[in-house]
Amino acid sequence: MQHRSLNDTRCPIARSLERVGEWWSILILRDAFAGASRFDDFQKSLGIAPNMLTRRLKTLVDSGLLEKRLYTEKPRRYEYVLTLKGRDFRPVLWSLLAWGNKHFAPEGESVVVVDAATGERADPMLVDRRSGRPLEAPEFKIAPGPAATERVRRRYQENAQRERS
Amino acid sequence: MQHRSLNDTRCPIARSLERVGEWWSILILRDAFAGASRFDDFQKSLGIAPNMLTRRLKTLVDSGLLEKRLYTEKPRRYEYVLTLKGRDFRPVLWSLLAWGNKHFAPEGESVVVVDAATGERADPMLVDRRSGRPLEAPEFKIAPGPAATERVRRRYQENAQRERS
Repeated sequence: MQHRSLNDTRCPIARSLERVGEWWSILILRDAFAGASRFDDFQKSLGIAPNMLTRRLKTLVDSGLLEKRLYTEKPRRYEYVLTLKGRDFRPVLWSLLAWGNKHFAPEGESVVVVDAATGERADPMLVDRRSGRPLEAPEFKIAPGPAATERVRRRYQENAQRERS
Repeated sequence: MQHRSLNDTRCPIARSLERVGEWWSILILRDAFAGASRFDDFQKSLGIAPNMLTRRLKTLVDSGLLEKRLYTEKPRRYEYVLTLKGRDFRPVLWSLLAWGNKHFAPEGESVVVVDAATGERADPMLVDRRSGRPLEAPEFKIAPGPAATERVRRRYQENAQRERS
């Protein structure tokens, strides 16, 4: 994928996408969450070209989402394990899963989030951690944070004006 | 972006990515949530090449995430408005935002989710809609759903065995 770097932006969504904004990367993370760790695991699951997989794994390691660990000396073989930062990606992945199940699963749900102990189905919903209130619009919205640049503040002001008009 | 189609898979994550798995698309949705609706709004915000923007908007319209509406006859001008399916993408976007804020905002948070009435900051967390329990591992996991193919069931069985070994 060719694109200009998003590093010049402070938007946390853009910055996140800079790390995973390519669907191979997200599917690699999906498989890592499902227990895949070796090159062959990912290759078998994804049917991706080896050179492409090597490149994607390297990007995820460089971004600090996967850790590359030697698991056997002879021959030298590595496995790729989710870091804390990588594991924190889970809510994004499960939100994608819920969205896909809702809108793009005409034949029914192929994979679901379940209670690991009981097997009972869970239904992902985003809430505010402290109050437990569902994070829905128009009750909640995006707004400039403490580190917002003048440009970001202006953009949100313009949006607010547009919505009132 | 060149890639084989993901349509042959039943994975809801892969299918979701088929619709938005390109970071321009996700940033367009981000801007649509922020109130952008006209070609120039997106262009100004993203600094994207017009032909690229046209293509991305078309993909989002074809996938049913944006609706193209005529807003003026002379000259004929269109705006792009989030559909219900598009609005349902919000939890994915806000999860990305929270992840980016946590890990990729060294200078502080540039944008945050806030209570629209009070301006108080919210902290996005994924829970089970019915029980309210936080969707975290290992309490929750992904498992084959009712429409899972034999291949999916086998893969999850292999993963479970790998985790036990």
